[in-house]
Amino acid sequence: MFVPRKILEEKLKQLLAEDVGQGDVTTAAIVPERQTVDASIIAKESGTVAGIEEILILAEALGLEGEAYISDGGKIERGQAFLKVSGDAQTILSAERMMLNLLCRMSGIATATKRLVEKLQEARMVTKVAATRKSAPGLLYFDKKAVLLGGGDPHRLHLDDTILIKDNHITVVGSVEAAVKKAKQNASFTKKIEVEVTNVADALTAAKAGTDIIMLDNFSPKQVKQAVETFKKAGFFGKVLLEASGGITEATLVEYASAGVDVLSLGELTHSVRALDISLEVTRVC
Amino acid sequence: MFVPRKILEEKLKQLLAEDVGQGDVTTAAIVPERQTVDASIIAKESGTVAGIEEILILAEALGLEGEAYISDGGKIERGQAFLKVSGDAQTILSAERMMLNLLCRMSGIATATKRLVEKLQEARMVTKVAATRKSAPGLLYFDKKAVLLGGGDPHRLHLDDTILIKDNHITVVGSVEAAVKKAKQNASFTKKIEVEVTNVADALTAAKAGTDIIMLDNFSPKQVKQAVETFKKAGFFGKVLLEASGGITEATLVEYASAGVDVLSLGELTHSVRALDISLEVTRVC
Amino acid sequence: MFVPRKILEEKLKQLLAEDVGQGDVTTAAIVPERQTVDASIIAKESGTVAGIEEILILAEALGLEGEAYISDGGKIERGQAFLKVSGDAQTILSAERMMLNLLCRMSGIATATKRLVEKLQEARMVTKVAATRKSAPGLLYFDKKAVLLGGGDPHRLHLDDTILIKDNHITVVGSVEAAVKKAKQNASFTKKIEVEVTNVADALTAAKAGTDIIMLDNFSPKQVKQAVETFKKAGFFGKVLLEASGGITEATLVEYASAGVDVLSLGELTHSVRALDISLEVTRVC
Amino acid sequence: MFVPRKILEEKLKQLLAEDVGQGDVTTAAIVPERQTVDASIIAKESGTVAGIEEILILAEALGLEGEAYISDGGKIERGQAFLKVSGDAQTILSAERMMLNLLCRMSGIATATKRLVEKLQEARMVTKVAATRKSAPGLLYFDKKAVLLGGGDPHRLHLDDTILIKDNHITVVGSVEAAVKKAKQNASFTKKIEVEVTNVADALTAAKAGTDIIMLDNFSPKQVKQAVETFKKAGFFGKVLLEASGGITEATLVEYASAGVDVLSLGELTHSVRALDISLEVTRVC
Amino acid sequence: MFVPRKILEEKLKQLLAEDVGQGDVTTAAIVPERQTVDASIIAKESGTVAGIEEILILAEALGLEGEAYISDGGKIERGQAFLKVSGDAQTILSAERMMLNLLCRMSGIATATKRLVEKLQEARMVTKVAATRKSAPGLLYFDKKAVLLGGGDPHRLHLDDTILIKDNHITVVGSVEAAVKKAKQNASFTKKIEVEVTNVADALTAAKAGTDIIMLDNFSPKQVKQAVETFKKAGFFGKVLLEASGGITEATLVEYASAGVDVLSLGELTHSVRALDISLEVTRVC
Amino acid sequence: MFVPRKILEEKLKQLLAEDVGQGDVTTAAIVPERQTVDASIIAKESGTVAGIEEILILAEALGLEGEAYISDGGKIERGQAFLKVSGDAQTILSAERMMLNLLCRMSGIATATKRLVEKLQEARMVTKVAATRKSAPGLLYFDKKAVLLGGGDPHRLHLDDTILIKDNHITVVGSVEAAVKKAKQNASFTKKIEVEVTNVADALTAAKAGTDIIMLDNFSPKQVKQAVETFKKAGFFGKVLLEASGGITEATLVEYASAGVDVLSLGELTHSVRALDISLEVTRVC
Repeated sequence: MFVPRKILEEKLKQLLAEDVGQGDVTTAAIVPERQTVDASIIAKESGTVAGIEEILILAEALGLEGEAYISDGGKIERGQAFLKVSGDAQTILSAERMMLNLLCRMSGIATATKRLVEKLQEARMVTKVAATRKSAPGLLYFDKKAVLLGGGDPHRLHLDDTILIKDNHITVVGSVEAAVKKAKQNASFTKKIEVEVTNVADALTAAKAGTDIIMLDNFSPKQVKQAVETFKKAGFFGKVLLEASGGITEATLVEYASAGVDVLSLGELTHSVRALDISLEVTRVC
Repeated sequence: MFVPRKILEEKLKQLLAEDVGQGDVTTAAIVPERQTVDASIIAKESGTVAGIEEILILAEALGLEGEAYISDGGKIERGQAFLKVSGDAQTILSAERMMLNLLCRMSGIATATKRLVEKLQEARMVTKVAATRKSAPGLLYFDKKAVLLGGGDPHRLHLDDTILIKDNHITVVGSVEAAVKKAKQNASFTKKIEVEVTNVADALTAAKAGTDIIMLDNFSPKQVKQAVETFKKAGFFGKVLLEASGGITEATLVEYASAGVDVLSLGELTHSVRALDISLEVTRVC
Repeated sequence: MFVPRKILEEKLKQLLAEDVGQGDVTTAAIVPERQTVDASIIAKESGTVAGIEEILILAEALGLEGEAYISDGGKIERGQAFLKVSGDAQTILSAERMMLNLLCRMSGIATATKRLVEKLQEARMVTKVAATRKSAPGLLYFDKKAVLLGGGDPHRLHLDDTILIKDNHITVVGSVEAAVKKAKQNASFTKKIEVEVTNVADALTAAKAGTDIIMLDNFSPKQVKQAVETFKKAGFFGKVLLEASGGITEATLVEYASAGVDVLSLGELTHSVRALDISLEVTRVC
Repeated sequence: MFVPRKILEEKLKQLLAEDVGQGDVTTAAIVPERQTVDASIIAKESGTVAGIEEILILAEALGLEGEAYISDGGKIERGQAFLKVSGDAQTILSAERMMLNLLCRMSGIATATKRLVEKLQEARMVTKVAATRKSAPGLLYFDKKAVLLGGGDPHRLHLDDTILIKDNHITVVGSVEAAVKKAKQNASFTKKIEVEVTNVADALTAAKAGTDIIMLDNFSPKQVKQAVETFKKAGFFGKVLLEASGGITEATLVEYASAGVDVLSLGELTHSVRALDISLEVTRVC
Repeated sequence: MFVPRKILEEKLKQLLAEDVGQGDVTTAAIVPERQTVDASIIAKESGTVAGIEEILILAEALGLEGEAYISDGGKIERGQAFLKVSGDAQTILSAERMMLNLLCRMSGIATATKRLVEKLQEARMVTKVAATRKSAPGLLYFDKKAVLLGGGDPHRLHLDDTILIKDNHITVVGSVEAAVKKAKQNASFTKKIEVEVTNVADALTAAKAGTDIIMLDNFSPKQVKQAVETFKKAGFFGKVLLEASGGITEATLVEYASAGVDVLSLGELTHSVRALDISLEVTRVC
Repeated sequence: MFVPRKILEEKLKQLLAEDVGQGDVTTAAIVPERQTVDASIIAKESGTVAGIEEILILAEALGLEGEAYISDGGKIERGQAFLKVSGDAQTILSAERMMLNLLCRMSGIATATKRLVEKLQEARMVTKVAATRKSAPGLLYFDKKAVLLGGGDPHRLHLDDTILIKDNHITVVGSVEAAVKKAKQNASFTKKIEVEVTNVADALTAAKAGTDIIMLDNFSPKQVKQAVETFKKAGFFGKVLLEASGGITEATLVEYASAGVDVLSLGELTHSVRALDISLEVTRVC
């Protein structure tokens, strides 16, 4: 998910412009022009940080100097000052909230993802943790990037990038088999085809029809295990990827992974983000 | 926060366009053209709904028919089908996720807000529950509207709409008194002036300097009570609004309110949203 | 009304892009590439300048060097060269008209505002001169900023920033009292509430209902005086702001101010601007 | 200057969106949803109207019904209700100011233009009244269209549409002759070439070099007459258009025209607009 | 590549707006307002049509009526009137060129693609004809859609949708093997991985490393055959897709296909388009 | 067609942003961060180059260093490395295709134009070669600029820049004479008027009516000669420009020119572009 800095800069400036509106009246009223300050960005709780690149790009775009003491994806501890922004006081104070809103959200996502990823690592599992497209509207890029920085797999980005046949598609087309067949026929050879199924029989049908990835929707760990075994018997295991999705929690994560799927995807990584608590403090007024 | 429907429509179409990218390849590959379907939007858990207006506007903008069985701000029960969308299958399936992403987030915000508001109502308190500017970047309008629909106060929108002097402003200017004085001098007479303070003495100073609203930042309920009493003695109570912010939880909400402030504002209403679980199901293929 | 320079730069570049269209054919046909020139921006009449920050930002954004010999809000005399722009000749000549169009309009607004403000200062009155929302569509930011630089109050910016109940709102709601009551009930505690009234009785009603600012619409100076006296008697004077609007001219300004209102607002400051005469002259071809 | 309605609609919606910001808080607070009203747009002074097409397009785009009792370019009398807008009260009240701002500005331009045009007609002159590019930034389309509706000539639109060699171009290139020669060589055969000159000798040089239009800059009527006579003698009169610009006022207009030029162009038609006084009144609440 | 009509409409209106500029001066000068006409869109040469959906969407968006007598992807014969557009004359004449520009380009692409596809069909080959990303900047969506309508495969859309490792990537990373290994490690499981190779040995290396698709770059048909045989021996044939690209012409197409690859991709399908000759004729003036 | 660099930069960044989508997944997966490379842009065939300014502007905008060894409009030979781009490897590889797509298209147009222009020069003719508005939608600026760099005339840009009365306009208005008469009456004096005619009689009518340029549509060289002679007899030759358009090929070009017209315009210069073969090669990995 590399975007040239200057392209990303445009998106960040738009988000800031929207936040500012016709002008920051507080800053205009009380902060002197041409006043220079240093500000520290400080973790108020520990976690995995994401959004540092964004803050540095935006700071530079605004004519400020930014310096990071840690890289995106690194761990920050409560109390740690991990970013410094220096320059025009009016500019920093006007951009403060928007910068933090992005940083806290992205870091919240990365932190939650990392926790799950580490849980699997501790259990010595190689199962992947993946996001879904249940992100905040307009913020998909940032949400997915945060998942990546937390060690997760971003899954699909746009609707244009992987064939993912879901329940409603199947309802319209009639059957899993018919849907996969149409997809194989019509989709570009450059795309993988994934199908969401609700039972083991459909999973097998989908695999036989040539699906690349099968999403086991709302399966219990036990049902997952059953699917894995069926695939082993049928010779699809290891060839067709298995992804479990729906109802997976931190508590059941290892159990699901142990059941043998390749990927565990969780909507709440991006739809129910708990922001990491981070604040900005002016540390020096020059 | 009324925006003419056709203006709001543009913003919604942009969010959808961004989500679709170069085209929905799944829908294109397997869903027939000119196929008409009915779809129900169904609550998978109970809560307060927000975003119905947005779904109806977007549906209409896309040439679909939308019908709501409940109004924004109403309560939905688990299992309740509260919205119906009918029309072109390709269009509905391409817009499904973006629609749900908005609806689930807004309803999540409204639900959390409502829960707090009702807690205060049950305790027979008239204290207001307010949001902060800690929203998701780019989604401030939708986040604030959801707070409103949940019975909360949206607080400031843009940086252009109320003078709010925070800790970093005071650091730059030197003192609460100097900051308020400058604000009174330079700000438009059409704006209220709010100051964030960290102790009772500063609160009193701010009130004397002519501040309209005082935000007690990270005060304990006990400290809030002390501030209220000091204000009563000084004759500012009821004239200068008192807002407590920072560290307020569902558990301490009533205690804070009982301490006598006018407003309780909570960043997590918008920065740490738990999406309400809502799904779309195709119910009829014509 | 502080907007980070790089955000303002985007708006200025858009205005220029719109002006240029597919390319400046004159410049392309006759001005050599890589030719450097110096140009002076010169007052053809005296006045108060506004727009210098905009010219400097745009010049820098275009890769030119800009230097100002005066600050925004300062007085310029006929014949005074107050700004210098140096750099690529093609760029300067293509941007000349758009730069001047903005500078002449903003300076025209600042000059007219300043004249009124000084008139009141000479009469030793502290009454504020304010703008209205009767600006040129799309130019509200620049128009309001020019009023500020002329010493005036910008009044509301967006429709989102202060409650202002006007005649048509009252027609729809039924009465001044009902309108204010609804506003008090529904508006955020962060907003002031202003009401436009057409007679003293309504002004009093509005004040009793808790309005923060009352706009006396099309009152004669005598009627204004009457309102002021009524407010003094009723104890509202000094607590509820009084703004007179409609029919105020340079000739009647002091009379209105003497009648005791806090603010005089004039639509013509922004809707009927007389541009200040300013031109750009290439002074050196390198 | 025909722009397909639906393209113009986009520009108008953008201007409105910018005006509204995050939402009209007044309307939201006090105007009921789904309330229908009729509103009349009424001339508070007499003049030539322009902007009716824009209001009707925007009204329709917003889901309102608009009806005009007069066409663009027609005369309106003080007190005349010449436009009616009906529909959703919240929408009308939110769009009122932006609609009037455009209508008042355009009508102000058309009125001033018409007055000059009629002055020449009364004097039985066929001289054209033209605008310049001294318009409000971002509003060039609307400003030029208003000039057209007032009976004037819009002159150049973008910088891409006619070669217009001005003083600064000549300074850079060295001489009128060199500038015209380069323009003839490099410009597309589809463009006319116009040159601004400051004396009769340069006017003659320009004509000999093959210029299509010559702008006599800041000539007195006497100097204009001298130029005309020189052109008659040299055989250029009637072949090369003569345009006088700079220092022309309503008082000297006929004198300038009598001097024999083809076109009189006036910057103040668009840079120093006096808005026509027009208001909107809700006439019926359904 | 399905995009909801109303989203596509926005893009089409933007292209038209850009084409019109400040207004169609010809239409404004000579075509009466409110004149209704019928216009036929007629093939001046035979081919495969693409762009009908776009014309119908834009026509409807502009308030015109459009009717198609053939579907996208169908064959049109020289002289055939295959589309009718009716409505406002000014609107049709202003949009004519932009509509034709899109239709002629898309149909040119579809026609060329179809010719190659049919050549292979006649030779009874199932090899796919694919496009590359060598499209016109900004027109990728339309170019790819036209390839699809001509029976081809659109290949990648954005840079975000398939991993495609090209020569320069390999130069930077060091070797085909290292590049594929990194891709397998870092890319989302939802993406296929394709590698461009310049010899058979690298093709084999890539296949062993787990690549999904291998692009044989500038291979002669003989070299392609050799690669196919190597893959058959190594057991990769039919499992790893083979795509030949570079230097393939209409003349060598069947020879390449016979060599056994799955896909033939040709840059000239989109980078060197010959527009299909199509014109619009006003057939009735009402 | 001069556009200030920083304005052009915006357009180029938008084209790139559209191409990248949510991020370049290949580059992200395998190219290391902060890796610096040099890349050469190399002609794979000889031709006239156009687009160098665009590549340099975009490179600089992206923080890369660009260096050109030739100017726009110059000749490049097969194998010649004429541009060098250095800097961040991820950025260069993400922008490579979009840069080449623009450069190859523009150079293809310039090359084709130049070939025709040189053909006429060799035949010692001064006839101009011109483009039409049959460009790729959205790329008109780049297409026209390439024509200019190839020595051609860009003809009209926007619909706002010259009156061009075509067949359909005449159908609507009734006759060539009526159309020209209306145009003379209504169009700005700053515009030339051009009419498309299908026979010599209409050409004469148009000239008599005061047209500036006459486009002889689909005339054979013989018919062109006849028109020229008619014009000579009638005294219009040399005063009214004659442009032949339609059916002109490289083979018939000189014959058409010899027939005596001033301009030959060819749609295929921009509607049927053959891209010049140019590639980018990473030459050094630092």
